[in-house]
Amino acid sequence: MEPYCKINDIIKEAIKDINFPESIKIFDTTLRDGEQTPGVSLTPDEKVEIAIALNNIGVDVIEAGFPVSSTGEMEAVKKITSLNLDAEICGLARAVKKDIDVSIDCGVDRIHTFIATSPLHRKYKLKMDKEEVINRAVEAIEYIKSHGIKVEFSSEDATRTEIDYLIEVYKNAVDAGADVINVPDTVGVMIPKAMEYLIKEVKKEMDVPISVHCHNDFGLAVANSIAAVEGGAEQIHCTVNGIGERAGNASLEEVVMILKSIYGINTKIKTEKLTNLSRLVSKLTGIKVQPNKAVVGENAFAHESGIHAHGVLEHALTYEPIPPELVGQKRKIILGKHTGAHAIKAKLKELGIEVGKNVTEEQFKEIINRIKSLGDKGKRITDADVEAIIEDVTKRTLKSERIVDLEQIAVMTGNRIIPTASVALRINKDVKKRSAIGVGPVDAAVKAIQSVIGEKIKLKEYHINAITGGTDALAEVIVTLEGYGKEVTTKAAREDIVRASVEAVIEGINRILMTHKK
Amino acid sequence: MEPYCKINDIIKEAIKDINFPESIKIFDTTLRDGEQTPGVSLTPDEKVEIAIALNNIGVDVIEAGFPVSSTGEMEAVKKITSLNLDAEICGLARAVKKDIDVSIDCGVDRIHTFIATSPLHRKYKLKMDKEEVINRAVEAIEYIKSHGIKVEFSSEDATRTEIDYLIEVYKNAVDAGADVINVPDTVGVMIPKAMEYLIKEVKKEMDVPISVHCHNDFGLAVANSIAAVEGGAEQIHCTVNGIGERAGNASLEEVVMILKSIYGINTKIKTEKLTNLSRLVSKLTGIKVQPNKAVVGENAFAHESGIHAHGVLEHALTYEPIPPELVGQKRKIILGKHTGAHAIKAKLKELGIEVGKNVTEEQFKEIINRIKSLGDKGKRITDADVEAIIEDVTKRTLKSERIVDLEQIAVMTGNRIIPTASVALRINKDVKKRSAIGVGPVDAAVKAIQSVIGEKIKLKEYHINAITGGTDALAEVIVTLEGYGKEVTTKAAREDIVRASVEAVIEGINRILMTHKK
Repeated sequence: MEPYCKINDIIKEAIKDINFPESIKIFDTTLRDGEQTPGVSLTPDEKVEIAIALNNIGVDVIEAGFPVSSTGEMEAVKKITSLNLDAEICGLARAVKKDIDVSIDCGVDRIHTFIATSPLHRKYKLKMDKEEVINRAVEAIEYIKSHGIKVEFSSEDATRTEIDYLIEVYKNAVDAGADVINVPDTVGVMIPKAMEYLIKEVKKEMDVPISVHCHNDFGLAVANSIAAVEGGAEQIHCTVNGIGERAGNASLEEVVMILKSIYGINTKIKTEKLTNLSRLVSKLTGIKVQPNKAVVGENAFAHESGIHAHGVLEHALTYEPIPPELVGQKRKIILGKHTGAHAIKAKLKELGIEVGKNVTEEQFKEIINRIKSLGDKGKRITDADVEAIIEDVTKRTLKSERIVDLEQIAVMTGNRIIPTASVALRINKDVKKRSAIGVGPVDAAVKAIQSVIGEKIKLKEYHINAITGGTDALAEVIVTLEGYGKEVTTKAAREDIVRASVEAVIEGINRILMTHKK
Repeated sequence: MEPYCKINDIIKEAIKDINFPESIKIFDTTLRDGEQTPGVSLTPDEKVEIAIALNNIGVDVIEAGFPVSSTGEMEAVKKITSLNLDAEICGLARAVKKDIDVSIDCGVDRIHTFIATSPLHRKYKLKMDKEEVINRAVEAIEYIKSHGIKVEFSSEDATRTEIDYLIEVYKNAVDAGADVINVPDTVGVMIPKAMEYLIKEVKKEMDVPISVHCHNDFGLAVANSIAAVEGGAEQIHCTVNGIGERAGNASLEEVVMILKSIYGINTKIKTEKLTNLSRLVSKLTGIKVQPNKAVVGENAFAHESGIHAHGVLEHALTYEPIPPELVGQKRKIILGKHTGAHAIKAKLKELGIEVGKNVTEEQFKEIINRIKSLGDKGKRITDADVEAIIEDVTKRTLKSERIVDLEQIAVMTGNRIIPTASVALRINKDVKKRSAIGVGPVDAAVKAIQSVIGEKIKLKEYHINAITGGTDALAEVIVTLEGYGKEVTTKAAREDIVRASVEAVIEGINRILMTHKK
């Protein structure tokens, strides 16, 4: 697939004097710096699952962990090295023998060793002078090299280190055998211009590849990483979804897509897998991706406003820099108060309604007004809302067409009671009653309904939005049901979570059955 | 408060040739582009609440909405102009008479009018040639100016427009009376170097202030906005939390903090209010802020790893670019598998336990190991977990000190049943029984417990993490209780949401009562 955002003339002019390398190496630290995200703890098996996904998407180096930090971490790194993946496996080690020994013991291909060099870290953390720091770094590098293992050396807090001293440290590291020099912006204080300048200064003095590791404290981790490439860096440290200490690290998906789609620089990443990788990492770490996250966010290719939705329906390029499929996403047209006629017409078509045929032009105008006024009330508009509006406007009172209705439901639970539910559903004119047990009251209620309806309609996904407030806060339940080749998503909100769940499920059953009947 | 990240020598050297203005104007478009976030709809009252917060934090211009897009939107903009805020109020209008008339009718101070100029938009969206576009722009600007209203003119998709034509459009706009020229990177395809170059080229040709409006499709909205300032822009369009179409816009909090703490450039923003503003916008729009969001994210000043927590405890500057209080945040030390001895010692101190006094050095080592091994299992560690570990290690078997235990609970609900719960709690040796009704089964259960315990302990917050999967997925409940001057947070996870809620509440009650007794 061709990335359709090609370098434009303005960009070409701005970067015409830079010699870019043909490709950039992606050093992924999701399993190390990413896992240091406060509150995140992955089990060894979860780390292995992510390592395999990283390998499959094509990262060059996987920093699998900081083996000395805990026995579980050591176990995880060992498991990953034993997989014999294509990616190089790296372990983090302070410039101390104990850390290095544990990493060696894990069987890693590369050791990323570091010592802090900034005046602040030397004084308050290490309590060492300039010379001691250099000696420690050199000893560590020589010790690792004596075991025949590749060394990547980081000067922690490099961007707040005196530049002459920083270069002296790096020169000593290279002389001691370091294979890659990494420049970490540990506290995320850099700006792109300064990062480019710093990398150029470092690169002048040495022949080994330069790598960069940026933190996102001011939201500039990605921009600084790319600026480092403009300065001559050949490797970027990234994490999936940009997770990591504090505000996180440079986001892999953003870095890769900027290089590919704006600069035309290759990485080995199979970009079509980016969204799935993002979701896997989000699921296992529990760190949510905000909807407006670039590239992989839920809204990254969603359009609501009239102008944008109209534009995209005419020609995707008008409001999309790259095709969503290129990163494993799909385009979404969302209805709301900003929606225009074009998007609503497209949505009606999806529902099998054509303007001029099923609804008149006048009715169509009324439908638009009703959708916008629902949006004005602050409501997110679902397919069910649109159908209700059409139904109302066209006076086809679908309510009377409902096939399944809830007559009665009763549910009980407790510590000495098996969660049990009984339901009475009216199906056309018959009333059917059933009971069921479950692991909790919602599960029992849904199972009782399921036992009335039979196996042709199934609950595919059940979701409750997070509830915050009191125990009387509104619970919003969203369910996806599948049956007769159709999939529908419905929602309901009530203070009683059991009743909200039942309502959403019955609404979904009706929508599947009504379409099936037509 | 002094921002402690001052411009360092590397940055100084990199930007020494740039003449920066003393201050930059913040044009906030949270209520316009931000509200166009797919799925977001604010009611007029919610828009007013945000407008007041934006005014109080000190933004220069509030783009209050796109009045022509719906009647609710028009009503909202009218309400905002009628508040007579210090900030200038701006309305968006396409370069068409109808849009402009509605904006004028709303009483705005400034109209932001736009027309697309890129070849793609001219051909597929507008179906106009270059001259027609210029004529439309000029007509619109002259029409607005004839009403004595300030005009900000945007050339939509400027960054994909032929540069010579773009400058021609802007020159015509200025000649027609435009007061500010805005350069939108509508589809977010720019890079910092190109943005700086483009702004310089535009600025050369005109005397009015240049503004910039960046989208975040590749994660570069903030970096590009700052690069525009390096090129001579004097106003930045931002949104709170970076919300907006697709991947959103430049994030106000990041832009402001970079200018203040790295460049030393002022805005009028009272930065101490940034976190509260972020939370307000997140609450009203429903768009969550990811924990690793720069500046305002939950983790932006949280430290878990041993090295970082140790550093910060020694000297905050080692791993924090700015003091959290500067942006209205607090520092957090989180325990987990990466935690080191220093952070655990600090946490124990918080709980009133001193190493060498309440626990021996050996016991302390054991506590560290247990905390790390709990972390290795992928668990997030709460205060209750730490207390349980201490208790176990020191053989002070607090279990026997439990004051309240659940003997029995039974709950029922349904569509013809008032949600009702009965509980039997053992308090010391007595068993007390009570029943209660509620709006749902959880509410009834918690009210029944509350009625046994009395008014001295109260549920302050109830939270359920979002549940996704089936109806048998684990529900994790987190509650905060308050009593006897203490506040505790506890959690429980079960497949039965009622039982998880009851368990978390009873655990919290015990923790308050045990501390109170001591």
